[in-house]
Amino acid sequence: MTMKIPNNYKSWIQFVQMSPPCLGNNMADVDRLMSQLQKQLETRSIEINLSIMAALPEIIRKSSFHVRCMLLGYDNHYQLIDVQPADTDCPIYGIAIDLGTTRVVLRLLDILNQQTIDEITMDNPQSFIAPDVLARIHYTDQPGGLKHLQQLIIDAINEKILHLSRNHAISPKDILCMSVAGNTAMTHLFLGFPPHAIIREPYIPVVNKQLLVPAAQLGITINTNAQIFVFPNIGSYFGGDLIAGILSLNMHQQTDIAIMVDVGTNAEVVLGNKDWMLACAGAAGPALESGVSKIGMTAGSGAIERISMERDSFVWQTIDNQKPIGICGSGIIDLASALFQSGMLDIRGKLMPDRCKGRLQWKNDIMHFLVVPKSDSGTGEDLTISQVDIDSLVRSKAAMYTILTTITGAVGMALTDIAVFYVAGTFGAYIDPKSAINIGMIPDLPMDRYQSVGNTSLEGAARVLLSRADAESVSDIYQKITYMELNVNQEFMNRFSAAKFLPHTDMSLFPSVQQPS
Amino acid sequence: MTMKIPNNYKSWIQFVQMSPPCLGNNMADVDRLMSQLQKQLETRSIEINLSIMAALPEIIRKSSFHVRCMLLGYDNHYQLIDVQPADTDCPIYGIAIDLGTTRVVLRLLDILNQQTIDEITMDNPQSFIAPDVLARIHYTDQPGGLKHLQQLIIDAINEKILHLSRNHAISPKDILCMSVAGNTAMTHLFLGFPPHAIIREPYIPVVNKQLLVPAAQLGITINTNAQIFVFPNIGSYFGGDLIAGILSLNMHQQTDIAIMVDVGTNAEVVLGNKDWMLACAGAAGPALESGVSKIGMTAGSGAIERISMERDSFVWQTIDNQKPIGICGSGIIDLASALFQSGMLDIRGKLMPDRCKGRLQWKNDIMHFLVVPKSDSGTGEDLTISQVDIDSLVRSKAAMYTILTTITGAVGMALTDIAVFYVAGTFGAYIDPKSAINIGMIPDLPMDRYQSVGNTSLEGAARVLLSRADAESVSDIYQKITYMELNVNQEFMNRFSAAKFLPHTDMSLFPSVQQPS
Repeated sequence: MTMKIPNNYKSWIQFVQMSPPCLGNNMADVDRLMSQLQKQLETRSIEINLSIMAALPEIIRKSSFHVRCMLLGYDNHYQLIDVQPADTDCPIYGIAIDLGTTRVVLRLLDILNQQTIDEITMDNPQSFIAPDVLARIHYTDQPGGLKHLQQLIIDAINEKILHLSRNHAISPKDILCMSVAGNTAMTHLFLGFPPHAIIREPYIPVVNKQLLVPAAQLGITINTNAQIFVFPNIGSYFGGDLIAGILSLNMHQQTDIAIMVDVGTNAEVVLGNKDWMLACAGAAGPALESGVSKIGMTAGSGAIERISMERDSFVWQTIDNQKPIGICGSGIIDLASALFQSGMLDIRGKLMPDRCKGRLQWKNDIMHFLVVPKSDSGTGEDLTISQVDIDSLVRSKAAMYTILTTITGAVGMALTDIAVFYVAGTFGAYIDPKSAINIGMIPDLPMDRYQSVGNTSLEGAARVLLSRADAESVSDIYQKITYMELNVNQEFMNRFSAAKFLPHTDMSLFPSVQQPS
Repeated sequence: MTMKIPNNYKSWIQFVQMSPPCLGNNMADVDRLMSQLQKQLETRSIEINLSIMAALPEIIRKSSFHVRCMLLGYDNHYQLIDVQPADTDCPIYGIAIDLGTTRVVLRLLDILNQQTIDEITMDNPQSFIAPDVLARIHYTDQPGGLKHLQQLIIDAINEKILHLSRNHAISPKDILCMSVAGNTAMTHLFLGFPPHAIIREPYIPVVNKQLLVPAAQLGITINTNAQIFVFPNIGSYFGGDLIAGILSLNMHQQTDIAIMVDVGTNAEVVLGNKDWMLACAGAAGPALESGVSKIGMTAGSGAIERISMERDSFVWQTIDNQKPIGICGSGIIDLASALFQSGMLDIRGKLMPDRCKGRLQWKNDIMHFLVVPKSDSGTGEDLTISQVDIDSLVRSKAAMYTILTTITGAVGMALTDIAVFYVAGTFGAYIDPKSAINIGMIPDLPMDRYQSVGNTSLEGAARVLLSRADAESVSDIYQKITYMELNVNQEFMNRFSAAKFLPHTDMSLFPSVQQPS
């Protein structure tokens, strides 16, 4: 008899060797398995459904009472999903999902061999009904709206699972588990929970705690006994995607104090270590994602993601190396940094006509700065950035810096005490920390303290399926986090005003930033 | 706002008043309800399904955060079944089921008002496929056999529920809970568990522990969130019907030592009090239920249930006052007692020709005793009982007495130490203890220690739905019981031989029994 993997305290897969029953030891089949599993997993709380119970007598008798069990759960409360003879060659797959507002990523996992098999990204099909969270929640106020949005995402996930299954010649019935990490609103829509109260004072989700949901109950077409691990939310504006992120970075296990920042329309920030965690979320302004700028755009083909000044001309890099058609968040930060460093923006973020020379244009009484002349652009028109756009960026960067000083200030820390600064998400993947420091968006830390950490939500979702210890950690993280409301009071406004300068009114906070030449 | 019943620690119905959320107290809806319920029920383990979660925000907001919850469960692990505004006038019904091999009884309960509304008895429809437990288990070895037997009982229960609902103008969706107490085999067939190993050494049920099963999963057509409380078995031959019986008699809470005896094809016996319980089961022989006797029959219209001798003639009483067509268990015991008392049976249980006078007949070389001449019988033929029938009864009564001496002997008690002797089931309802003592079937205790207790299985099933404390007691009882295998060894055989006399070889054990005149 071969065991593919040894029994591992941290694994969801448990091999159980029972003693065969006899007249002096006539415990019932299910009770026999459960008492052994309870010992191995050190918990009394294991659920098992009727169909697994009904199949058990035959399985344990044809396997000499040596079986392989698959479970899922948390808080020492587990659901038994599957029992097979120990020497089965039946695989066990799982699907980890990062449930984004705009994009959804599915990762197919080989649970038995602890490997990623494939990953697939799709647009969240709810976007076509309503692009952002707010619009989607309003849509659920219509009759049938909630059901419609839920069905869209369930159907899309089922379709992608079928696609992944076909591509890798696996059977959906061998997919025994799933995990979902999304923001609070997306999690509600996935589960069919009315999100109405999320966006209305006092901002109350239907449920925050994590859940284990039978896949069949949601109509997810994988194994009929499969369970879905749904990450908890901390509140309306701090969702399971961030808890998954904290898990994937092991912030909850580190002694050093780290901070994780995820920037979209909102900036979500969590600060802490193994002993405590403080979280907050605030509006970061639209400048960083798609925004008000005529040339601002979300990261996509032809977007300038990097831009710098060499001598008096710009050098840029676009996504897919296309002719530039716009500029995304990371590019805007680079641009502002370059303009400030060259003296074309002053410390108030205002364009300096005497330095900008021929690059200034007036349109509708608003000053514009020419970034890419029409000869070089992919649109056939000049790509410009206006003073209004720059003002918007300055407000965004000031908001970000103010959130960072507020959260560290709340625990009596200086920003320089942060040992590791994680920049998560697609924004983190592209941003040049040096540029962001130059404009005073993020603190002036040594570059090696910054880490771009990619899709931590997906990573965390995968980890709860691969490791029982990680799944248990989710409750720890959930309980450890204190959510701090950002009260926009006088002190906050004072900090915000000081942060609206490039990089800051207090230059001593940014010793590495060179004064404009 | 009116509350129909006050919050009661013992009840499955809990009224919960939550504080409304505000900015400083923004716990999610489900978490808010659950934390309050957890406090009231003093447990952390309460499950809630998606559909109840999804409906919660609207319900709590339109009820000023004051709701009525219905739960079910055991071992401090509960399932939330229903949430309504506290001032709802929506009723809550439950169905308690005594799942017998031959007969099934359903009791419709008003959970809110703690009342029985109606009761309905039906033949177990599986009887038409296979009359007894053994034959039914063999039938499940055929392809589709198990599914067929399960569907028969589920369909029949659904039909009777519909019938009860119509008769009382209630909606099946207002039936939120159900309980099922049956012997081990019937419980297996109800749940769709293969009962194959129950009757084969070493006699292993699929599961013994109690279960909470979603009604929808079994296809029981009541509320879609309804749960079914399934009583645990102690083993293959001591089922949930007996645990329910113990519960209904409060044996697990009494200081006095009581014994409960349920007689069918098997005799099931439990002895004990609040500190300990010892159980055993043994073949009681067929004489007492339907049996080998030509006139033996299960209790039914025209069966002699009581018979005595006045002067030299019999006086009988039949079920439904019909002309006699046979004699059921209680009647056979009366008859044997009367024959023994009158000297027509000797102490070995043999018919005495010189005493029986004209009542003896020979058929196929076997001596018969005329009980009812054809002129009085409902069949138009003489109703007789043969020496073979009497021998069979004597073996049954000896087996019963031997089981009783064995179980009391195992704890060093005398039979006379038994404070209360419960005779359960239909057998208990009709048996005349005086007759049973006369033939030495049960011990010679003062008559006031005998109690006929009717359908204790149904009674216990009803109690778990009406009282949380009673439902919790089921685990206590389950854990308290030690099951004793009846080893048919030399000592047992010696006891059995001594008990094959009327009433016993040791007459000092039966001081109240008059010697035959």
